Parts: sequence; structure tokens; C-alpha cells
Amino acid sequence: LDLGYNLFVMLQYLALILHQECRLDPSKTVLVALSGGPDSLCLFDAIWRLGYPIIAAHLNHRLRPEAWRDAQAVKQFVGERNLTLAMSEVDVGEFADTHGLSIEEAARLVRYRFLFEQAEHFNAQAVVVGHTADDQVETVLMHLLRGAGLSGLTGMTFRSFPTSWSQTIPLVRPLLGVWREEIHAYLSERSLQPVQDASNLDTQYFRNRIRQELIPALKTYNPQIRQRIWQTAYTLQGDNELLDRAVDAAWESCHAVAGPGYVSFKIGELQVQYRGMQRRLLRRAVSLLRTGLHDIDFDTIERGTKFLNKPKYSSQIDLSGGLYVFYEEDRLWVAAWEADLPTGIWPSVEQGKALDLQVPGSLNLSGGWQFYAQPAYDISQAFSQAMGNRDPYQAWLDFNDLQFPLIVRGRLPGDRFQPLGMRGHSTKLSDMLINLKLPSRARSTWPLLLSGMDIVWIPGFRLAHPYRLKEKTRSAVHLYLTREYKDDGEGISK
Amino acid sequence: LDLGYNLFVMLQYLALILHQECRLDPSKTVLVALSGGPDSLCLFDAIWRLGYPIIAAHLNHRLRPEAWRDAQAVKQFVGERNLTLAMSEVDVGEFADTHGLSIEEAARLVRYRFLFEQAEHFNAQAVVVGHTADDQVETVLMHLLRGAGLSGLTGMTFRSFPTSWSQTIPLVRPLLGVWREEIHAYLSERSLQPVQDASNLDTQYFRNRIRQELIPALKTYNPQIRQRIWQTAYTLQGDNELLDRAVDAAWESCHAVAGPGYVSFKIGELQVQYRGMQRRLLRRAVSLLRTGLHDIDFDTIERGTKFLNKPKYSSQIDLSGGLYVFYEEDRLWVAAWEADLPTGIWPSVEQGKALDLQVPGSLNLSGGWQFYAQPAYDISQAFSQAMGNRDPYQAWLDFNDLQFPLIVRGRLPGDRFQPLGMRGHSTKLSDMLINLKLPSRARSTWPLLLSGMDIVWIPGFRLAHPYRLKEKTRSAVHLYLTREYKDDGEGISK
Repeated sequence: LDLGYNLFVMLQYLALILHQECRLDPSKTVLVALSGGPDSLCLFDAIWRLGYPIIAAHLNHRLRPEAWRDAQAVKQFVGERNLTLAMSEVDVGEFADTHGLSIEEAARLVRYRFLFEQAEHFNAQAVVVGHTADDQVETVLMHLLRGAGLSGLTGMTFRSFPTSWSQTIPLVRPLLGVWREEIHAYLSERSLQPVQDASNLDTQYFRNRIRQELIPALKTYNPQIRQRIWQTAYTLQGDNELLDRAVDAAWESCHAVAGPGYVSFKIGELQVQYRGMQRRLLRRAVSLLRTGLHDIDFDTIERGTKFLNKPKYSSQIDLSGGLYVFYEEDRLWVAAWEADLPTGIWPSVEQGKALDLQVPGSLNLSGGWQFYAQPAYDISQAFSQAMGNRDPYQAWLDFNDLQFPLIVRGRLPGDRFQPLGMRGHSTKLSDMLINLKLPSRARSTWPLLLSGMDIVWIPGFRLAHPYRLKEKTRSAVHLYLTREYKDDGEGISK
Repeated sequence: LDLGYNLFVMLQYLALILHQECRLDPSKTVLVALSGGPDSLCLFDAIWRLGYPIIAAHLNHRLRPEAWRDAQAVKQFVGERNLTLAMSEVDVGEFADTHGLSIEEAARLVRYRFLFEQAEHFNAQAVVVGHTADDQVETVLMHLLRGAGLSGLTGMTFRSFPTSWSQTIPLVRPLLGVWREEIHAYLSERSLQPVQDASNLDTQYFRNRIRQELIPALKTYNPQIRQRIWQTAYTLQGDNELLDRAVDAAWESCHAVAGPGYVSFKIGELQVQYRGMQRRLLRRAVSLLRTGLHDIDFDTIERGTKFLNKPKYSSQIDLSGGLYVFYEEDRLWVAAWEADLPTGIWPSVEQGKALDLQVPGSLNLSGGWQFYAQPAYDISQAFSQAMGNRDPYQAWLDFNDLQFPLIVRGRLPGDRFQPLGMRGHSTKLSDMLINLKLPSRARSTWPLLLSGMDIVWIPGFRLAHPYRLKEKTRSAVHLYLTREYKDDGEGISK
């Protein structure tokens, strides 16, 4: 019989894949996810027949009224073979509601958490799941349609360590090279009766459309399209691995420090990399800082890459996901808004102190910063300089509005400020500083310039609306902060 | 007006692209392909307005009766602006027929030949063509459908050197980031009237289906699909460049010799590379040896990669395209069937000589080869060894069929041979040697074993049918060649 031959070939093939691609040891326990659907049933039966010590794991998602019947069928199937079944149930609908997740995302989350918990409990060498070659093609097409880069187009792999679940127990997919037709042939030959596959939830609308409409349509262009896409993904996995290793090496040579919420690069090393490498380094930095961020969009990476090649035209840009990039001395920093950076090179005034600033005159602040005030007698020149100014540590105020000496101090409770452009009313300074994305460590000691009781300038950010240069202004004060670069030994060098 | 602003933005954008991506010098002449269709008309007009010295080039493909009218329209358009037009015509249909090409392939060939000839003639800094962002998306989808690896998915680039046309004049595509709608807006605002685009040949059936059916269908999955695919290709270009540089480095460390029709690798270096790198090295070797081969298929590369990791299980495998891979000492060779390899390590007998081989006995051949003959008294052992034999330099013949001494000589005119499995008649030895893919240099001195007037064995290939072990065989002769490895200084070391 031809069918017998197929079954034999299939088992031979799976034995090879389990060994070579999944790298499993036939003498050690595996935990197999068994929904009872065709894929997992085929997978479970084949691995069992190949002699692996096996534990079945079934999770009732309580998404369909007949789910308990699936659980019963699985129980019977496993029981008949005198094997161990780990079973549990979770109300995925409720879990999705309380966690603000989609049903698919919630189902995925609770399922993998359950599987890895059980694998740990039974000391299994791997969690084995039944994704097929068709699932692979659908996954690749989904990523393509959503606009993935290379790593999306690689799809799923035979063996991986999904970091959110386990660092030590791999997730393996032995059926990744087996087509749906082959699974059905296997089941029919072995006279195995699957339950309706719980993974085919009606809610997986996008994937189902790809399976039922898009792939058949693509077959009219190339009858072998599934195979071609599968092969493309497989080849790209190899390419992606090479790139990852190349990025490892470049990261090693380019990055300066990495800490909670920040990464910095040596700008000189970074700028000599190929554009493609710069993108990948930036992408890796973003992934490190925002592990939840799945898809870092094209524009974000392009803006970041452009910036890092010409940081001097602008001191800082926002990326997406609450991250920003800025340039300082010979370092490029990628940081979360909320992060306390180790640079320590912002200007500060000791808490509780208020320092007089004469005009002309200057003050020494911490970290090598100098605060200067100069009268600007040539008012038309002052106007044109103020208009063209791109340095946030420089400002021109109306001389006649000010009370001397000016005062430099840190913030006090109750401080208010009326930023340039906001007429008539002021805002709480504390809110303002948060909006300005100042690290919290910097906020309390950030230098503020006061005239009498009014804050007239927040160096690095905003000047106060009433003190701006106006049409009637006849003379001005030029204010600026500079810093002499000093390596303070903390964070700046590697 | 909004439109005026768009035109300005478009020209600004193209000025930037011409400079940054196409790397053109605005003071030097460019040769622009001008079919008269929308894309080329927009391209030509924009580059002209940006002040580049410009030559128009138009080729009449004589594929449509109205082609001469397009040529007239182009002539008038260029003439009105007092610019130079290079014009020619080719009967592409006839060219396709005589060269056995498809119409599209023939049109492409004659068009680019014409453009680069003219660019050289006018000393132009580049050939400029009008491929748009839509063309890019279509190209990527075509490659995906056909099953491309990474390099296919990168699509076209802003600037390239299509090696078959010119090593010095680049081909640039400034409109690669411009969508068809933007081209039409440009034309309508500038009141330019395109001719029907000759590139939209009815024969481009596959591309037209992608444009008119597939892309609209994909838009129902993601309205931004064109942009996503474009961005994916752009990102993959950067990744592909990184990989190419990594392959350069690995090639440098792995390859031993390369010559006409062959490449050899140091097997030790090759085997420690990542699988993805091994694939790329093999792919590069194949491209070097078969420059015409566009798509090296997945299976070929997979078979080659598997072989190179376990060459000892089999001495030689065929790749596609008339190439084969074999393993010898510490080298892996990729070679064309017809190539004369520099190894010089095949066994040979001086022309005109005939050497006696006693049983038991041995002969010294050139290159360190030894030819042994031994009686095999244990006939059942001889049978089982002969059945399991995988070494082509080893054979067992029926003792009683042979005349002694056996003779070893090179081939003579008129030699015939009856290979194993071919009953009743013999074939010309010369044809046989060609079919066996022996390098021509090796053919004339390849050792043949004779019993009386009959060639009974071609070592490394076949034994003669009448002399095989048969049911009635009572004793056998065991024949084998071995070689002691000697570095002959030619080709073996780098």
C-alpha cells in the first residue's frame, strides 16, 4: 500500500527533524500541547510512536460551549495509551476583558504560560507545539501584509526560546515542514478522529481570510506558492541569523553604556557603519528599551538613522513608544522619557540655594556648567540672533522688564510659569517639567532664572512670555549656559 | 494653490534623491530613457527643470503599429526644448524570434543595450530610467510569487551597476519612491500629454495581473500595502548589503582557488560557517560559474549545503545548470561539467603505454595513484562487499571471465564498452567518457582495465556488463585504486 509507505516516510522524516532541527533527546520527556485538533493529534501520535517519553498538556480556553467535549476526547485518547495528561482551564474571555487584550492575544498568553509551567513541573526538555507548514506560510503572509522587515518574513522556527516564557526550555515545532494534507493523510491512515481545532477561532479573522481567500488566489499565480513562501522563510532564517551575529559584533564596538531605560553609542563608531547596520543597531536599542514594542515602524527607524548621521543639526528627536534620541559630546543616547540617565551632565543648583546673577556676570553651576548674562546693546542684532537661535541654552529677554540682580535657584513648591506663546495665564511648574521630559533626577535641581518673584527662563527649554523681546523692546539681556566637557568617569566612557 | 506646492515639493524631493541616492552631479550630462509614457515624461521634465544637462534617448521597439507616432511625439517634445534626442529602432519581435527570447526579455535587452551605447557615446554620467514606486512593489511581488530569496525581495535600487551593460556608467531610478498618482498629478499640473506607455505591453501578462488584480486584492487586507512592501524592500536592501559584505569576508577565508569553470573551498573553513553563510557561499560560487543562471533554486542550494557538511558519505553530487560538487582531500570543488580542473589528481596512464597488471599485483600510476588487483576467494563475502560498495574506485569482477595478465592503458580510437546494466550491445567509449562528465584533459589518459581486447572496468565509473559477478560466479578479482595525498603545488593550496 502506498499509504503505509507514506506513514513510514513521515515518521522517518519527523525522527530526523526532532533530532536535527529541534535538537531533542529521544530519551528525555517532552511536553506536547494537545488541543485535540488535527495538527496536535498527529504530532502527539507521531512523537509517541517514535518512543519519546511524552506528557500531554491540554488547556480548556472556555471559548466555545463544546470545549469540555474536546477536553473529554483528549482525556480519553491519552488515557487509552496510559500516558500522563496535564489539564487546566481558564476563562480566556474574562482574562481578555480584565487585561484589555484581544481574544487571540489572551488565548496565546494563557496557553503558553500553562504549557511552560507544566513543562517546568514535569522537567520536560521542550514544549512541543503543532504549527504546520501552512501555518508558517500564513504567518509570513500576515507579516508581509502588515509590513514586516526581515525578521517578520522568517516566520516561525523549528526551535526557539521565546524569552517571555523560558530561557531554558525551548519551544519546538516539528511539524513546521509538514503540510495540512499530509497531516490529514496521517490521521486517516492511523484512524484518528480529531476534534474541531480550537485554534481555528472565528475571531482569527485575518488569518482565516489569508488561508481561505488569499492563498488560493496566490495559487493562480503560482501553484507552488506555498512551497515557495515556505522556502523563502527558511532561507531568510539563515540570513537573519548571519545578520544577528553581525549586529552582535557591531553592537560590541559601537555601544558605550546600557542601563535601565537608556543605551548610548559612540557616535564615531556608529557613523562609519553601513546604513543597514545603523538601522539594526537602532532597532536593537529600541527593542531593549521597549520589550513590549512588537513592530518598530519604518518611519521611526528612518528618522533615527537620519538623525544619527547628522546629529548636529538638531540636538534631540522623539522616536515612537516614549523614546527619544539625543546627541551629547561624542555619544548618541537612546532613552526612555522616564529614564534617569547616568550622564549627570545637566546643569543644576544645590537645593535650597539662590544665587545672584549680575548683568554682565556669570555663575559656576555643577558639572562644569557656566551661566552667563550680558547686556545686548544692539537691539536689531539681538532680534535677529534670537530669531535664528537653535540653541536651547541661549535666550534674549527684554532688559526693561527685569529686576536686578537676577536670581538662579532650583524649583520650589508652588512655582508657576507662563511659557512663551501662552498669553494671560501661567501653569504649574511641576507639570511643566514633567511635560518637558526632564529626568526626575534632574527636575529638583534644574536651574531656573528669576526676576523678582517671576521665573523668566528655564534654560534648555522655555522663556517666560511676558519677558520675551517685543516690538517696543529697546535693549535686551543675552543669557546663555555653556559647559566645558569633563569626563566624570560615570557612564561617559565605557 | 495646493498643486503648486506639490510640484515644488516633488522637485525638491527629486533634487535630493538625485543627489543623495542616485549620487549624480548636477553639472554633468545624464541620458534619460524617454518612451513618451507618463513615467518617463515626468522624469525627463523634472530632471530638465532641475537644470541637469540632459540627453533624451528613445527606442522604437516596432511592437505596435502606432509606435512611430510615439516616436514623433517624443521628437516634438524634445525639439521644442532644443534638447538632444538619441533615437533608434529595432524590430524586437524579430530579435526575439532569432534569439529565442520572450518579447519582454528581448525588449529589455535591446533597450538597455541602446541606452548604454548612447550613454557612452554622449559621455553621460548615468542612464536614468523611470521605474516608479509602483513598479518596485510589482517587482517585489513577482519575485515573491516566483520564490525569491532575500536579494529578489530587495527589488530595484536607486543606483546600480548592471554588470552586463556597464561597469562604469550607473543605472539610476530617481522615481523609485514616487507613486503613479503623484506622476499623474505632476503631468496634469505641467499640462504634459504622455503617449501610451510602451512598457505596458500586453505580453507582460504576469506583471499586469499583479497590478490590476493582486495589488487591489491585497489592499483589502491592508490599505497601505504598497507602502509597506516598498518599505520592506528598502529595508531589505540595507540588510542585503550587510550580508554581501559578510559573504565577501567569509569567501576570502574559505575559498581556495577559482578559475574558468571551477571554484574550490577549504572544507574545514567552510564547515564552521553558519548554515546561512554556507548557502550564500555556494550561491555565489554558482553565480560565478553560471552567470546566466538567474534563479538558483532552493533545492539545489539545500542539497549542496547538506553535501558540504557531510561530504564523506558521497564523493560527488550534481547541482543544477550543468554544475557538480565534489569532495577531494581537504577541498570542496564546485565545477562545471566541461571545466578542466587544476587539481591534476586523477589517475592517468601515459599515452601509448599498456601496462600489465598481475593478480595479485599492483601498478604505480601518475599522481600518487596505485592500481591493485587481488583474488577474492570467499565468494559470498565478495558478493556482499560488491553490493554494499559506494567507492567508485573499487570493483569485483568474475575471475573465470578474465584473461591474465590484465592490461591497463589509456583509450584508443575505436574503443567500445558495454557498461553494467546494458545487455547485448556496446557503445562508443568516447561518447561514454563525455557522458561521464570527465574533464577533457583527463579523458585521453584515463586508465582503462582490459582483459584481452575487452575493456572490463573504467575505474571511478563503470564495470563491463559481461564481467560482473553473476549467480554462477565461483571466484572473483577485487580491483581498487587508492591515492596517497601529495600536494602537487598546483591549485591545491591557495
